Amino acid sequence: MDPSSTSLRVRLPALVLVLEVILLVLYSFFVTYDDNANAKMQNNMTIPMDNSLYRDYPYFADVQVMIFVGFGCLLAFLRFYGFSGMVFNFLTATFSIQWAILVQGYFQFYQDGKIHLGVINLINAEFACAVVLISFGAVLGKTSPVQLLVMAFLEVPFFSVTEWAVLKYIRVNDAGGSIVIHLFACYFGLGVTFVLYRPNLNNGHSKEITSYHSDILSVLGTLFLWVFWPSFNSSLTLKGDDQHRAVLHTFIGLSSSTMTAFALSAVFNKKGKLTMADIQNVTLAGGVTVGASVDMMISPAAAYALGVLGCTACFLGYRYLTPFLAQRLRIQDQCGIHNLHGLTGLISCTAGICAILLATEETYGPSMYEIFAHRSPPEGDPKLLALRQLIPGLKAGLGRSAEEQALYQVAAIFSTIAAAAVGGVVTGFVLKLPCLASPADDDCFDDELFFHMPTDFYSEVKKTPSNEHDSKV
Amino acid sequence: MDPSSTSLRVRLPALVLVLEVILLVLYSFFVTYDDNANAKMQNNMTIPMDNSLYRDYPYFADVQVMIFVGFGCLLAFLRFYGFSGMVFNFLTATFSIQWAILVQGYFQFYQDGKIHLGVINLINAEFACAVVLISFGAVLGKTSPVQLLVMAFLEVPFFSVTEWAVLKYIRVNDAGGSIVIHLFACYFGLGVTFVLYRPNLNNGHSKEITSYHSDILSVLGTLFLWVFWPSFNSSLTLKGDDQHRAVLHTFIGLSSSTMTAFALSAVFNKKGKLTMADIQNVTLAGGVTVGASVDMMISPAAAYALGVLGCTACFLGYRYLTPFLAQRLRIQDQCGIHNLHGLTGLISCTAGICAILLATEETYGPSMYEIFAHRSPPEGDPKLLALRQLIPGLKAGLGRSAEEQALYQVAAIFSTIAAAAVGGVVTGFVLKLPCLASPADDDCFDDELFFHMPTDFYSEVKKTPSNEHDSKV
Amino acid sequence: MDPSSTSLRVRLPALVLVLEVILLVLYSFFVTYDDNANAKMQNNMTIPMDNSLYRDYPYFADVQVMIFVGFGCLLAFLRFYGFSGMVFNFLTATFSIQWAILVQGYFQFYQDGKIHLGVINLINAEFACAVVLISFGAVLGKTSPVQLLVMAFLEVPFFSVTEWAVLKYIRVNDAGGSIVIHLFACYFGLGVTFVLYRPNLNNGHSKEITSYHSDILSVLGTLFLWVFWPSFNSSLTLKGDDQHRAVLHTFIGLSSSTMTAFALSAVFNKKGKLTMADIQNVTLAGGVTVGASVDMMISPAAAYALGVLGCTACFLGYRYLTPFLAQRLRIQDQCGIHNLHGLTGLISCTAGICAILLATEETYGPSMYEIFAHRSPPEGDPKLLALRQLIPGLKAGLGRSAEEQALYQVAAIFSTIAAAAVGGVVTGFVLKLPCLASPADDDCFDDELFFHMPTDFYSEVKKTPSNEHDSKV
Repeated sequence: MDPSSTSLRVRLPALVLVLEVILLVLYSFFVTYDDNANAKMQNNMTIPMDNSLYRDYPYFADVQVMIFVGFGCLLAFLRFYGFSGMVFNFLTATFSIQWAILVQGYFQFYQDGKIHLGVINLINAEFACAVVLISFGAVLGKTSPVQLLVMAFLEVPFFSVTEWAVLKYIRVNDAGGSIVIHLFACYFGLGVTFVLYRPNLNNGHSKEITSYHSDILSVLGTLFLWVFWPSFNSSLTLKGDDQHRAVLHTFIGLSSSTMTAFALSAVFNKKGKLTMADIQNVTLAGGVTVGASVDMMISPAAAYALGVLGCTACFLGYRYLTPFLAQRLRIQDQCGIHNLHGLTGLISCTAGICAILLATEETYGPSMYEIFAHRSPPEGDPKLLALRQLIPGLKAGLGRSAEEQALYQVAAIFSTIAAAAVGGVVTGFVLKLPCLASPADDDCFDDELFFHMPTDFYSEVKKTPSNEHDSKV
Repeated sequence: MDPSSTSLRVRLPALVLVLEVILLVLYSFFVTYDDNANAKMQNNMTIPMDNSLYRDYPYFADVQVMIFVGFGCLLAFLRFYGFSGMVFNFLTATFSIQWAILVQGYFQFYQDGKIHLGVINLINAEFACAVVLISFGAVLGKTSPVQLLVMAFLEVPFFSVTEWAVLKYIRVNDAGGSIVIHLFACYFGLGVTFVLYRPNLNNGHSKEITSYHSDILSVLGTLFLWVFWPSFNSSLTLKGDDQHRAVLHTFIGLSSSTMTAFALSAVFNKKGKLTMADIQNVTLAGGVTVGASVDMMISPAAAYALGVLGCTACFLGYRYLTPFLAQRLRIQDQCGIHNLHGLTGLISCTAGICAILLATEETYGPSMYEIFAHRSPPEGDPKLLALRQLIPGLKAGLGRSAEEQALYQVAAIFSTIAAAAVGGVVTGFVLKLPCLASPADDDCFDDELFFHMPTDFYSEVKKTPSNEHDSKV
Repeated sequence: MDPSSTSLRVRLPALVLVLEVILLVLYSFFVTYDDNANAKMQNNMTIPMDNSLYRDYPYFADVQVMIFVGFGCLLAFLRFYGFSGMVFNFLTATFSIQWAILVQGYFQFYQDGKIHLGVINLINAEFACAVVLISFGAVLGKTSPVQLLVMAFLEVPFFSVTEWAVLKYIRVNDAGGSIVIHLFACYFGLGVTFVLYRPNLNNGHSKEITSYHSDILSVLGTLFLWVFWPSFNSSLTLKGDDQHRAVLHTFIGLSSSTMTAFALSAVFNKKGKLTMADIQNVTLAGGVTVGASVDMMISPAAAYALGVLGCTACFLGYRYLTPFLAQRLRIQDQCGIHNLHGLTGLISCTAGICAILLATEETYGPSMYEIFAHRSPPEGDPKLLALRQLIPGLKAGLGRSAEEQALYQVAAIFSTIAAAAVGGVVTGFVLKLPCLASPADDDCFDDELFFHMPTDFYSEVKKTPSNEHDSKV
């Protein structure tokens, strides 16, 4: 293949230039500070330490570590693809957040002709970014940075519209983002990789292997994701006891899923040994599984059980479903996002629905109508007045019953999956455009294609005796 | 040795299953939310941002980084044992926290038949987890994950009972946990390793070496521990100035101990070169040494001196005491926990006693009776009423004099050491049970035993010319 | 060269001993707790959670991660100099903060004969430490740890005096420290390296290369710096909306500079490939560039443009200016600090001046006189009374006009650069003292000189076939 066809020399700068001009123009005309970041709104009535910064920034910073360090290291698990995994993640994440500030901002933080910008927008944009990075996992090693930027450019609007429609019209409870984030990201990514199908890679690739150092680096990423996942799941809940529960449930779910992952890894290995790929990925399943019900009164034991359940589904998915999807349905899911985000996301949604159906005032007290805001009586309902005696400032809702809310959750699940799959397929076709520097099959999983490599890469790292090739990831 | 004797295929899953069932049953029947995480307790009198979450979670998250990333990387310092160091730490830590939530929760957070769960329990459980991980350091490289889980299963109750007895009956000042955490963990670990004595390893082991990359990874762990140690030492102090001092003292103690470690490392090397093992471990001594007096008005200079002193003791311990213990007392202390936690812990306790004896109302003002709560006058004492004029809500204490409190501290030190040593020895005998997959001497310090290894482990990493073996850790 | 001339066996311990005695004596006589850390000041009027600890500590901890982990990993980018980069950073940073607490404390926190110590001092000292570490970048690989400690010993007072003079007499707006930190650090480091000129190194050095693993480690450092830079830039702003804007601007500036760095890296490489050195360094330019105006109402779009501008200058500097400085002006700037801190610092200062000139009450409201404190009317001015109706407690200022303030900023820039350059040259001459263990040209960029190395360093890591040497960093 002609090496110039994957040279980034013109393609990447040209695309970045276009994107930067778009971003700068939109920032100039449509973005202003939100009240908490606006000096003019500062007056003798505002107390500096009450600024929303102090509520939001710690969670923002934790999620930043997850996105840039956690995902970055986790995706660097391939022996010859460490630069790409870590650095393309950096580029894609940076652009995705910028872009989401604008697109998502238009849907959620737009008033009087301007997007009002504060740290809370950044947190929301980080969630959109996480969506893109999860989808990236499906096509890791098989895409150029130009393709990744284009994917982010398309996925962020697809996601923002879906999120907006689900939150505004269907109105769901989904504090940890199991529906909106994990399911969307998963099925979008599967849609993309379905279109980008590479039949030659179905029997493995000689560079699709890990190394001692890349496996350790990847575990380091897992540990950062694990440690800060409670911040991720709790960053958009209501403040107070809701956020407190979200932290507890996420921690417990991750813990039980970690123990389960070790057990399953050993039991399914013929020699009874542990496999690093399981520890890098399957341990995290619990964080997704508790997502949809993370702020509800599900009890710590339920969070524990969800972690075990999600982990088991995820593990079995890696073992049986991923090969099946690749061989039969031409869906090559490189990092197994369908296991870690799809299957667990579906379990999480089911659990969320159960939690909604089981929620009673007896368990929650009147604050049930805060957590399940759509079950709060509508404006004018005398019950709303009675509740406002107990919880001043309670917002009017839609007066939905538990069953109605559950049905809306189901509707949200299916419509999100549909929107994601369609968006992914469309994006996949765009990514096939010949000018986007897509790597040849042989050059997949190889940093050399897009990086000026240090010399030891050739002499030491890439010295792979043929007898090594029996080990695939 | 028969390879099936160390296969994890049945042992690990079976043990995990048993543990998970125990945990799940106990969670189901005995764990509920504490008031700060309970929606029903949320009413129009509670202010969401006053939730204890916002006081506790930042410290919890910092300690999480220490436990999972800091310890994990630090323990990955061996050339062929990086997977095991990092990943067994992950498994052991995860289980220990879960288990401590229940066991420690029973002793400290149990009322009306339930353990009340909030982030504050998690912080306490993290401390129990730190105890297990420190003890783990004594037997690193010589134990299977099954043994480690069993050790954690036994150590957490031993620790929780000891902690409860010391805090409830002896009643000590020990904000940084020098007595309860570091001394307990150290002597428990020494007890275990005493029983697990392997005479063949006393002259070194060919795999007991580091590599360029493992040394760097281990320093990275040290840096994370160093950076967040102030959070560790201050997370259970009183809020306000006490916590503020704890942060300052820990930072100063670590700083002086770091400088001292570099100096000692150079002066004791024949060629005047630095040794990475010193920088990985000895630099941290100051964090332990300031522990027992970390919240007291000891003055910044005293914190500085304590760092120097602790570091010197720790360094000399590594150089002279560890070999002596191994050769003469059959105590093989792999990571030298007796130096980093035992010697420094004893110095810290001594410093704490001095600080208690020197504490006066002149220095502390009336808040002396808050910090040294047991010196507060008992209920009914007129002095208590007078003090409550100055500090509303001051809790009644035991009216101990400084000398009495000092004696109780001494009692706590000896009883903790005794309890830990006995617990360790008992646990050691349990760990000798043949079904626990204990590695053969030859297989120690080798990831291959319990992991499916990437191929470069054999071809590159493990290519150790015989002339390399002169260097031992 | 006689190996004993670079042995640390006497030199390093002797120097550390002297420094520790100095530090301990000064701590003993001159350091006490500030009111927020002093138990005696705790009374029934103080609310524990209002302690300054809770406002300052999160930012302190974030900057700690940047200094110890971020800088440490970033500076470990050389193939044979990973130990030194990471560990000398550790030693130098630790000493610098300790020393700055005292020296800077004398200038900024001294009253009644004592330095009053709280976490806020530590944050300030971290900034002084960042200055030393940036300067360190200019001489990385060519200095012994003894020289580095001496450099820190001299640079901290030079810096503290300059900072004090600029803040107290010239009085500038410089929340992110573009003038006081980045420009000072840059020109000080250039001064040092100018004196330490090594003509033999001007044509490259066979060990001045990276490796696959060192490049990844270095990017990890970049990511930690990137993630926590908003905390750095905002840690000394006013609380409230000012700090909020500082976070937003830093994030946006870093984002646009990251995208630009990728584009430039590709366009300037003949094969259209990405270069890791660009991604490690140039991506961070935006963080510096937004510094001087980081808390002002410059608009998000301006922060975006500043990131692009700073990144471009920084990139072109690396490509054209650094070689020029080394070849023509005998300024060997190892890590290119003049690009990342000098050029970007100058742009930042210019932007700050523009923002000052454009600031109006219309944009800022009356809080303009808080942000631009020196423009606040002086005591006795009736306008001050009027403003105090709107902002109670507004501090009296100097009544400067925007133009006057701008001129003072210019004065600060030039005097800071001059002071830094002079200080750097003086320090450089001190570092040439023969007893400071300066490495010979051949031994530069080599861990072996100062470390006891693991054996694989010789057998694997340092096995560099001659044909590898064509690649220089």
